[in-house]
Amino acid sequence: MDKGELERVYSYIDAHLEAHIERIREIIRIPSVAAENPEGVRRCAQYLLDQFKKLGCVDTELYETRGQPVVFGHYDAGAKNTLIVYMMYDVKQVSGENWTLIKDPFEPQLVKMEPFKKVLVGRGAINSKGPLMAFLNSLFSIKEYGLELPVNLMFVAEGEEELGSAHLIDFVRDRVGKLSRADACLAPGASQNINGEVSMSLGCKGVVEFELVCSGEKWGRGPTERAIHSSYAAIVESPVWRLIHALASMTDPADPTRVLVEGFYDNVAPPTPEDLELVDKLAQRLDEEALRKVLGVKHFYRDLHGRDLLLKALYTTTLNIQGIYGGYTGPLVKTVLPEKASAKLESRLIANQTTKETVEKIRRHLDRHGYTDIQILEYEGQNAADDWSRTSPKAGIVQATIQAYRDFGFDPLVWPYSLGSSPQYMFTKEPLKLPFISAGIGHGARAHAPDEYYVIEGNERVRGLADAEKFYVWLLSKYSNTNLK
Amino acid sequence: MDKGELERVYSYIDAHLEAHIERIREIIRIPSVAAENPEGVRRCAQYLLDQFKKLGCVDTELYETRGQPVVFGHYDAGAKNTLIVYMMYDVKQVSGENWTLIKDPFEPQLVKMEPFKKVLVGRGAINSKGPLMAFLNSLFSIKEYGLELPVNLMFVAEGEEELGSAHLIDFVRDRVGKLSRADACLAPGASQNINGEVSMSLGCKGVVEFELVCSGEKWGRGPTERAIHSSYAAIVESPVWRLIHALASMTDPADPTRVLVEGFYDNVAPPTPEDLELVDKLAQRLDEEALRKVLGVKHFYRDLHGRDLLLKALYTTTLNIQGIYGGYTGPLVKTVLPEKASAKLESRLIANQTTKETVEKIRRHLDRHGYTDIQILEYEGQNAADDWSRTSPKAGIVQATIQAYRDFGFDPLVWPYSLGSSPQYMFTKEPLKLPFISAGIGHGARAHAPDEYYVIEGNERVRGLADAEKFYVWLLSKYSNTNLK
Repeated sequence: MDKGELERVYSYIDAHLEAHIERIREIIRIPSVAAENPEGVRRCAQYLLDQFKKLGCVDTELYETRGQPVVFGHYDAGAKNTLIVYMMYDVKQVSGENWTLIKDPFEPQLVKMEPFKKVLVGRGAINSKGPLMAFLNSLFSIKEYGLELPVNLMFVAEGEEELGSAHLIDFVRDRVGKLSRADACLAPGASQNINGEVSMSLGCKGVVEFELVCSGEKWGRGPTERAIHSSYAAIVESPVWRLIHALASMTDPADPTRVLVEGFYDNVAPPTPEDLELVDKLAQRLDEEALRKVLGVKHFYRDLHGRDLLLKALYTTTLNIQGIYGGYTGPLVKTVLPEKASAKLESRLIANQTTKETVEKIRRHLDRHGYTDIQILEYEGQNAADDWSRTSPKAGIVQATIQAYRDFGFDPLVWPYSLGSSPQYMFTKEPLKLPFISAGIGHGARAHAPDEYYVIEGNERVRGLADAEKFYVWLLSKYSNTNLK
Repeated sequence: MDKGELERVYSYIDAHLEAHIERIREIIRIPSVAAENPEGVRRCAQYLLDQFKKLGCVDTELYETRGQPVVFGHYDAGAKNTLIVYMMYDVKQVSGENWTLIKDPFEPQLVKMEPFKKVLVGRGAINSKGPLMAFLNSLFSIKEYGLELPVNLMFVAEGEEELGSAHLIDFVRDRVGKLSRADACLAPGASQNINGEVSMSLGCKGVVEFELVCSGEKWGRGPTERAIHSSYAAIVESPVWRLIHALASMTDPADPTRVLVEGFYDNVAPPTPEDLELVDKLAQRLDEEALRKVLGVKHFYRDLHGRDLLLKALYTTTLNIQGIYGGYTGPLVKTVLPEKASAKLESRLIANQTTKETVEKIRRHLDRHGYTDIQILEYEGQNAADDWSRTSPKAGIVQATIQAYRDFGFDPLVWPYSLGSSPQYMFTKEPLKLPFISAGIGHGARAHAPDEYYVIEGNERVRGLADAEKFYVWLLSKYSNTNLK
């Protein structure tokens, strides 16, 4: 695309923005909650398949797995380069969340939210239906304006990302013949923070999620069948106290971010010299204030900042409690001694840890401390685990993307890892071994939390939807004649 | 009443048993859930008031409190003795309970349940609508048969027992003039265990219930507004871990029934010689197997039994966790770092502890361990606290009741305390200082738990509803010419 063509596509985007916003609302309205609503997930898969067909993909497929389907679409533009576009179309559940800006998280609304002119609030707004649809909007704009896409695309959209992407690997293995023709992978995202700073990650942490259950039934002590009247607490033991002590044994009371499970930090690779270079650059520019603000956090761990904060964030494996429950949890009080209690745990992994070793260490810790009866539920088949991933800063797609950001006036913060997890290892490790990045301008926040939002009209620094779409057009035109590998 | 009259009232009861069962079902259908349904509670109060009027009480009152009303009815039989009949008409909530024998806990059903021929299953069946209505049925039978009641009765029925009887004391103080004319207090109950053994208690433990809340908002660390994405767990602290360590610091990991809170066992009076005599008798006869069976508990604490089990049960104050909750508690997993967590705690108190000192000790413990930010919610106004109570074994009503049981073929197990709590201290301490017992034959179990039941037709050892009602007739006739004090 020459400069004139680009400008005219940009104008086309501006002229059709209302319809583009409506398309984001449309996909958010489909309640594709991976953990709770398989029907909604399937409806969203069908919706995406229709979009890929409408765009002009000739080879499309709703690939069935033992879980949710993978939606595939191959768009052949006759171009030099082929890009795998990784997307997720599922979202996190909203149960237990208290949304204050809108009533129904699946009926997205445009609201004013300082410091932005207009944001779209709804489940999946930022993670990841907003950016997904912004990317598709940009492709439709190129096509509707009458031009050809500058790269060939292979869409791979999965509906189980929030459950740990248990079956995406089956798709990758089954379709490795097609997929290995690609040069690199891109995941559309909104990479600006609340102050407008752009960041990109050359990989991500892994994650393993599991539930600990302590029950009188397995323990053989305490109430075994049902909660009993608490007047017997002097002579009947409590599975709730047992779980609390089992959990407490795993972390340092004076600093619960320090995990005491034996060997928990083994295999954690220290930062490479290349990493440290990136960390030093990041430390100079990271807007900690903005990050704290968007998270609603007054102090980071030990009030660390700069390089120390980054090293802690990037190179420490974690043991987080997602939730804990047992016994009576309703209003006021109820005199019961519960028969069981559960805690949902999660560990974030970095090179060179494995999901398997982490769960094994927890099991060994429990056993050694006498908690052999406490069960670890791993949700097999809905595997709540992702491996970590790395992409070299020298990869062609990384350099081309950094250049595209600079063309748009942004100097991106480059992270060796993202703190979050994704299934990108399925593309970066065997058999494909492709570079993988997430890119895009724009901003949103509160993923997995109430009042999740995506900026539609920003401010001087944070770009809105129109610019996000224009950037994708520019990015793809950049990719058209670069070696992406 | 002479022997012939008694026999004929007994026959009248047998002939009207179907209607008597229906009356129990009728009151269980009124969902008087103290913690959740004030409208249901009020409907039940009105129902009882109507019953008292129907019986022939001339002085009745729906005494309004800042909470639920107290229902009062004075039946003047022109008799020598006056008995306060204490009743509760509220029940525990059913939320979170998994009932298996019936669908709706407020639509009671008769079912066969080994080793009984027929039990009535429903919320409040044993605690305490079954026994309450059995008592009223016996009074109606005497009256309907054309006889006068053998004692004067003052009904005091409260609707907040499950919330700690916060306002009953206001009623007692306001009506002390009337109430002080009474000689003793009786609470109708079903005192047989699953093997038919009758027990009676000369008092009860106290209880104090409260909730600990650890929030990022109060702490000033961790997420302060809402749950955040758990990828930040390496650098954002967790209120859930904080609560777990705070709780863990309160009890011995090797034996969580041992409370480590400083001074927690101070003021716990050792058993008196009189108590030890009762305990020794109890130890010879206590059917531990039956108790374990009814509770669904395979082992008591440290496999204690006999005298040791009883001393532990009776003379140890407790720190029970009724429930714990925080973060994501739905299906599967959700990658969040929660902004708060809560635990509902409870301590059972014995002479000479006070509810006030127990909460103060917990507060001091939290403060000393650096948990000054963790809040203690005490539910003031819906005060979840009862004092302990004692009645002398030498009181006239105690001796007359033991004799009545013997007349019916039972040799009661006499407990110095019951393990549960009740507001009886409001009658046994200043200003009334009356002896107080609970009495009645029959059996039921699973109070505050799913599939709560009350035996309607028992077996050779456990008596059903008809005998329960006959026993009350006999008991009242015993009370007619005894010094109850």
